[in-house]
Amino acid sequence: MKYRLGIDLGGTSVKLGLVNPARKIVLDSSLPSGGVLSAKELVKNIGRVAKPMMKGRNIIFVGVGVAGDIDSKKGIVRVSPNLNWKNVPLKSLLQKELGKPVVIDNDANVAAWGIYKTQMRPTVQHALVLTLGTGVGGGIILNGQVHRGYTGSAGEIGHMNMLENGRPCKCGLKGCLEAYAGGANVVKYAKIGLKNRKKSILNGLKITPLEISKAARKGDAYAKSIWEEVGHMLGIALGDLVYIFNPQIIVLAGGVAQAGTLITRPISRELKTRPFKTPVQNVKIRIAKKAHNVGIIGAALLAP
Amino acid sequence: MKYRLGIDLGGTSVKLGLVNPARKIVLDSSLPSGGVLSAKELVKNIGRVAKPMMKGRNIIFVGVGVAGDIDSKKGIVRVSPNLNWKNVPLKSLLQKELGKPVVIDNDANVAAWGIYKTQMRPTVQHALVLTLGTGVGGGIILNGQVHRGYTGSAGEIGHMNMLENGRPCKCGLKGCLEAYAGGANVVKYAKIGLKNRKKSILNGLKITPLEISKAARKGDAYAKSIWEEVGHMLGIALGDLVYIFNPQIIVLAGGVAQAGTLITRPISRELKTRPFKTPVQNVKIRIAKKAHNVGIIGAALLAP
Repeated sequence: MKYRLGIDLGGTSVKLGLVNPARKIVLDSSLPSGGVLSAKELVKNIGRVAKPMMKGRNIIFVGVGVAGDIDSKKGIVRVSPNLNWKNVPLKSLLQKELGKPVVIDNDANVAAWGIYKTQMRPTVQHALVLTLGTGVGGGIILNGQVHRGYTGSAGEIGHMNMLENGRPCKCGLKGCLEAYAGGANVVKYAKIGLKNRKKSILNGLKITPLEISKAARKGDAYAKSIWEEVGHMLGIALGDLVYIFNPQIIVLAGGVAQAGTLITRPISRELKTRPFKTPVQNVKIRIAKKAHNVGIIGAALLAP
Repeated sequence: MKYRLGIDLGGTSVKLGLVNPARKIVLDSSLPSGGVLSAKELVKNIGRVAKPMMKGRNIIFVGVGVAGDIDSKKGIVRVSPNLNWKNVPLKSLLQKELGKPVVIDNDANVAAWGIYKTQMRPTVQHALVLTLGTGVGGGIILNGQVHRGYTGSAGEIGHMNMLENGRPCKCGLKGCLEAYAGGANVVKYAKIGLKNRKKSILNGLKITPLEISKAARKGDAYAKSIWEEVGHMLGIALGDLVYIFNPQIIVLAGGVAQAGTLITRPISRELKTRPFKTPVQNVKIRIAKKAHNVGIIGAALLAP
């Protein structure tokens, strides 16, 4: 049987999984990535964990997802702030270490690809995936392929400008989508509201997107208003994306997306205000199924 | 020699051109389209003009650009407000009339395709064309092909939302890019400024984008400020598009684009504020060469 090795290379840990032809993980493992290791040291450590997993099996391919600015074509990690890397030729380092063909890509593309390959129908050709985690990542699937653009930088949907001089974003600009729909900012502004004496059962709780959702489902007006605002801003952004890409489906993934209908309802309401009906009526907005291994599977499936 | 027939089907006239393998128009003609003719009548009239042009020549293909909501796959004009058409099977009507294979597409895609095929290097794979005419149209070229999306509706860049509750747009919404960068709105707001007693050499002139550019080049502060604002809003929109698509080049066409550096300078200034440098440093912003027949040539080149 032919296996693929998927690697999800994050700022604190490396997750590895052997993926079978049915797109299931049959064996997985992990190791710390830390910020103190050089790329060469980390690749050695990955080899120590991966080689025993690969031994005696027909491994056709290794795929890797990395957070950062990735040149997928050349196989280079241009910049990864989480790993403290610059211009690391990760593809060739790993090929040498593991003796298999390697493809690398950024984590948002890999997550989108994993969700596309495991949660969408094969008839879907044009899809967008927004990962609403701490930040907001985007992956664009067109004609059944990841659209990476000229330098592999495409898909920065989280930093679309929503409002000039709007909320500050950690990227340094103001008014990015992430500043309204990223989990860290949702929590930050929820807390600001509570400090400003908003009445809510959230008072005194540790605020997380999940807690805000729970409170909203219990009917808490303040919690509901938080998701209304997030959904409203997402609705404006998705309206632009629907007009631009005319996709069949937009899937929302990540912790914030678990708010479910609390955000999809205001999104749909916003989309319905758009006057060009054909693209709006022909797009589905869906919440991704929870799948914490989507980074491994997406990476494993990067090559055909 | 193999020729293609390109047809630019507008609200007031139909322009036809025979295009040779060197992508030059060797023979052209036109007829009125009017709003009073049925689709069948207009197709008959097109036949009367086209057949003598085609006679005795090896015509391999007919391409047509139409303003409106076009289903290029099925060859149907869903809605064309300019022609007062709904659900017209234009492809099959024209194939029957002219006896040649026909492809139809919307005018913004056709213009983008024409500019792509005649004004860009063959190495360009990912390009955007914004036609800044009376309104703002968009055409998206990815992997050397027009991206049309699921229902052929992709590319509505002119109706990206720039500002919630911003300037009213003729589409019915507020704050669309077209409301800031479309020629009709540039002129409208220039006039409002003059009414509000802005000092300018434009006072008393018939205001057009060209006149505003002339005044700005003479140093008129008000005229310059108009293009600064247009360029600023375009810069925000192009920043989003650069982040999303990561194209090699964005070409600005149409009357407003003739403002040239008066708008490209503020666009570049705005782009430079974006913190993710790789996609921004790798995109060129260019003004299209004037080419009033780009609609005919783009249509003629629609099929491979």
